[in-house]
Amino acid sequence: MPSVRRVSHEFLERRGLTTVFGNPGSNELPFLADLPGGFRYVLGLHEGAVVGMADGYAQASGRPVLVNLHAASGSGNAMGALTNAVASRTPLVVVAGQQVRPAVGPEANLASVDAPALMKPLVGWAAEPACAQDVPRALAQAVFEAELQRRPTYLSVPYDDWAAEADENSLAVLDRRVERASVPGEKQGRRLAERVAAARRPALVLGGDMDSAGLFDAGVRLAERLGCPVWAAPSLFRLPFPNRHPLFRGVLPAGIAPVCEAFEGHDLVLVLGAPVFRYHEYLPGRYLPRGTELIQVTEDASAAARAPMGEALVADPGAVVDLLLERLGSAAAPAGPYRPVPAPAAAEGDRLHPEQVFAALRDELPEDTAYVVESTSTNAAWWRQMDLRRSGSYYFPAAGGLGFGLPGAVGVAMAQPDRPVVGVIGDGSANYGVTALWTAAQQRIPLTIVLLRNGTYGALRWFGGLLGVPDAPGLDIPGLDFTKIAQGYGVRSVHAGDADELRAVLAEPADGPRLVQVDTALTTPS
Amino acid sequence: MPSVRRVSHEFLERRGLTTVFGNPGSNELPFLADLPGGFRYVLGLHEGAVVGMADGYAQASGRPVLVNLHAASGSGNAMGALTNAVASRTPLVVVAGQQVRPAVGPEANLASVDAPALMKPLVGWAAEPACAQDVPRALAQAVFEAELQRRPTYLSVPYDDWAAEADENSLAVLDRRVERASVPGEKQGRRLAERVAAARRPALVLGGDMDSAGLFDAGVRLAERLGCPVWAAPSLFRLPFPNRHPLFRGVLPAGIAPVCEAFEGHDLVLVLGAPVFRYHEYLPGRYLPRGTELIQVTEDASAAARAPMGEALVADPGAVVDLLLERLGSAAAPAGPYRPVPAPAAAEGDRLHPEQVFAALRDELPEDTAYVVESTSTNAAWWRQMDLRRSGSYYFPAAGGLGFGLPGAVGVAMAQPDRPVVGVIGDGSANYGVTALWTAAQQRIPLTIVLLRNGTYGALRWFGGLLGVPDAPGLDIPGLDFTKIAQGYGVRSVHAGDADELRAVLAEPADGPRLVQVDTALTTPS
Repeated sequence: MPSVRRVSHEFLERRGLTTVFGNPGSNELPFLADLPGGFRYVLGLHEGAVVGMADGYAQASGRPVLVNLHAASGSGNAMGALTNAVASRTPLVVVAGQQVRPAVGPEANLASVDAPALMKPLVGWAAEPACAQDVPRALAQAVFEAELQRRPTYLSVPYDDWAAEADENSLAVLDRRVERASVPGEKQGRRLAERVAAARRPALVLGGDMDSAGLFDAGVRLAERLGCPVWAAPSLFRLPFPNRHPLFRGVLPAGIAPVCEAFEGHDLVLVLGAPVFRYHEYLPGRYLPRGTELIQVTEDASAAARAPMGEALVADPGAVVDLLLERLGSAAAPAGPYRPVPAPAAAEGDRLHPEQVFAALRDELPEDTAYVVESTSTNAAWWRQMDLRRSGSYYFPAAGGLGFGLPGAVGVAMAQPDRPVVGVIGDGSANYGVTALWTAAQQRIPLTIVLLRNGTYGALRWFGGLLGVPDAPGLDIPGLDFTKIAQGYGVRSVHAGDADELRAVLAEPADGPRLVQVDTALTTPS
Repeated sequence: MPSVRRVSHEFLERRGLTTVFGNPGSNELPFLADLPGGFRYVLGLHEGAVVGMADGYAQASGRPVLVNLHAASGSGNAMGALTNAVASRTPLVVVAGQQVRPAVGPEANLASVDAPALMKPLVGWAAEPACAQDVPRALAQAVFEAELQRRPTYLSVPYDDWAAEADENSLAVLDRRVERASVPGEKQGRRLAERVAAARRPALVLGGDMDSAGLFDAGVRLAERLGCPVWAAPSLFRLPFPNRHPLFRGVLPAGIAPVCEAFEGHDLVLVLGAPVFRYHEYLPGRYLPRGTELIQVTEDASAAARAPMGEALVADPGAVVDLLLERLGSAAAPAGPYRPVPAPAAAEGDRLHPEQVFAALRDELPEDTAYVVESTSTNAAWWRQMDLRRSGSYYFPAAGGLGFGLPGAVGVAMAQPDRPVVGVIGDGSANYGVTALWTAAQQRIPLTIVLLRNGTYGALRWFGGLLGVPDAPGLDIPGLDFTKIAQGYGVRSVHAGDADELRAVLAEPADGPRLVQVDTALTTPS
């Protein structure tokens, strides 16, 4: 019989999980031994960056991705980054090394004591097989759980297991096929279509899951058929709709009262592919205006169960769009022209206004550019200036956890080598995942990082004002020069002193990773 | 009545937890509001660095330390670093912000769902008070648990709690006093002393806890009284004994068979302040030679319970040393002269041998220099060249988790401003905690980082050879220039091209943080 390692590698190959993002420790080496030639190992210098890169890669490719991490310390380093992957429902399969079986109980160095207990509260499914012969099946379970539940999963494997002889029964995993059916039944579909057809003033709310599922254009078709206003769900992590489309009303504010206010006058709100809702700022009030009903369609059963109001249908939003278009007919009134872009706000002294930076991106870069954004204080400026009309144009840390942006941009660029990719990263954010620059340099990834330096945690400063805590310590971050840091990691860098210099840099296509630092004025997220 | 915040700040002041290491998010701002003037907030740019700095500070000061982190994402970023604090038994009190109470259940953005469940498997004690009025008491519990159990603890506090009015009963925590008695009873002490006195050829094994507890000199007194060989426990994180003392036999190898071999001929092994044992490499064999008995004295009840052999007494090792010296008499034979230092190995081309680097440290720096080391592949070279005779001379990541070294050195230097502090950091290691350089620059900490650049994960390369996996991917890390990275974080830096250049830099006292990069030849840990 082949080894447990051989069967596991074979399973991963058959499922297409051959790009491995990792940072190895001694426990991981036996898994990485004899990796077949079709595998590609992408080294990150810190586990947070490893998971961020894998998250971006998985989101942009739409496929589950393998991550290989070290035991407790290495996996621990990754847990912040994993919170974003949980919120974006990214199917990351984390395989971690464990000490040899006899060394786990006595807590030898680099043993992860009760490894599944450490990770389960975060990722939902975590396991350590009880014997070597169960490893291939457990690995298959980790992959299928990640695909079915759209969450990261975690498998801890004692490193002496990989060389063990596989059980004949374990070969059965090689031919498994596991899928989920999530099309509404006839009655469910009819009822939903009747509700939507009967609405006098419906509204659509589209979540990031719509873009993840490739339903960007489907959302446009549905909105134009209904001729109704469209919002993006609060705390948005991917753009599900063209942001200058005449029906688009913007990203919903992340507070109970302002969301209620936005829905005033609508008798039905149809939410597709989003939790109801990811509020942030606590602004209490009614959830919905009197007379407004809400129907949520999501594949996320937990999001349906925990929502505080409305009806929910746990189903594929794409199937729901299809059945609505079929039942309502697809004839749509012309939606009218896209909204024009306003002139950008002016510079403040020698600091560019972020709107000037974003106008430069919009003007100088191709229309199909994908942006990975981790700059919260420039959120309002971003949406004012950008004109994003394509699927997969916008990524943001889904749990609000900093450290996704820079690595995520590397991952998105690796998954889509034919599409220009730009990371728009604040100077506060950049520090959480900065080592991903090195991977970009080593892998020669064409990628532009626009580093917005305002010298402060801008969004936090704004939130402190809202909370009446303007004097908190730890908000300023002076004395950072990311052109130097980038060079230390092998990435070409430049400081752009004004909008013309920035535009000149952006006008050149990136033939590898590059970082452009600009000093920007402090703005507020909304 | 005062606010929950006021009572909590007052409690922390009375307990001396007024240095706060943190990285804030919006949930943390209300705790940080109105922080009394006696508090000092130390900002880190990444939570791993925050915890590493706090760990170093707490270890060097011998006091519990407050850490303030953001909810799931921020706390998640810290979990790798916390594994080291768990292993070094560092009393870190982590207070994390939670969303407002009504926003936790519906999983608003930045809510930490079931926050205690996320952290408890790692830190042992984690809680979220069930109401605002319980916050001061729960904070006191977090501090006392950290002190009593010598572990990090974690308290998640909904941010609306801080402004709530305190309950009169909560003021009772201000006067609490909680201590542990851990002196052996008369019968326990007599039995132990008789066992030691009856041993014909005893041996001592001293763990890192001895140095943490200020028992470095006590260990020397006991060893000289017994005239017996002394080893440091395997997987050492602090040096408990002068490494060139004539009775010192070195750090025990971290494998079952070689430890057994080392004890050959000894009828009694007395282990003070260490688990039995933190093996790493799996080299099976008998735990102990036939006829060898082992007695472990530790304050760590879990370490006593999980040990696979020997007797254990859960007690203060310092009290045990005192009672042994009292009962055995303190007359000691002269131990003889300290062992001389061998000439360092020679350079390989333009790469310095690590022994040359360490010889330079030994010769050029004061005897009371404290070293924080995170360079595993140079371990053998380190002990060959160094001559450390004082308490608190050596720190190493206790769980083997990379990322402690650089931040830990910053923390040690902050706690001991009158003692020179040097971080000896490998180029692989440095990436896990590199942002601590910024804090060192901002706080103007006198500190020298010696960056050993060999372009590879050296210890891993060695371990791969032992495991028969020489071909694993992801072991090389070329193209890093830490002089540039340091400059980007505001730290003065220089590349030393040979031993003379290195010595010239080291001979100047550090008046702030500085980084010296040297290219070194690849060596093996043992």
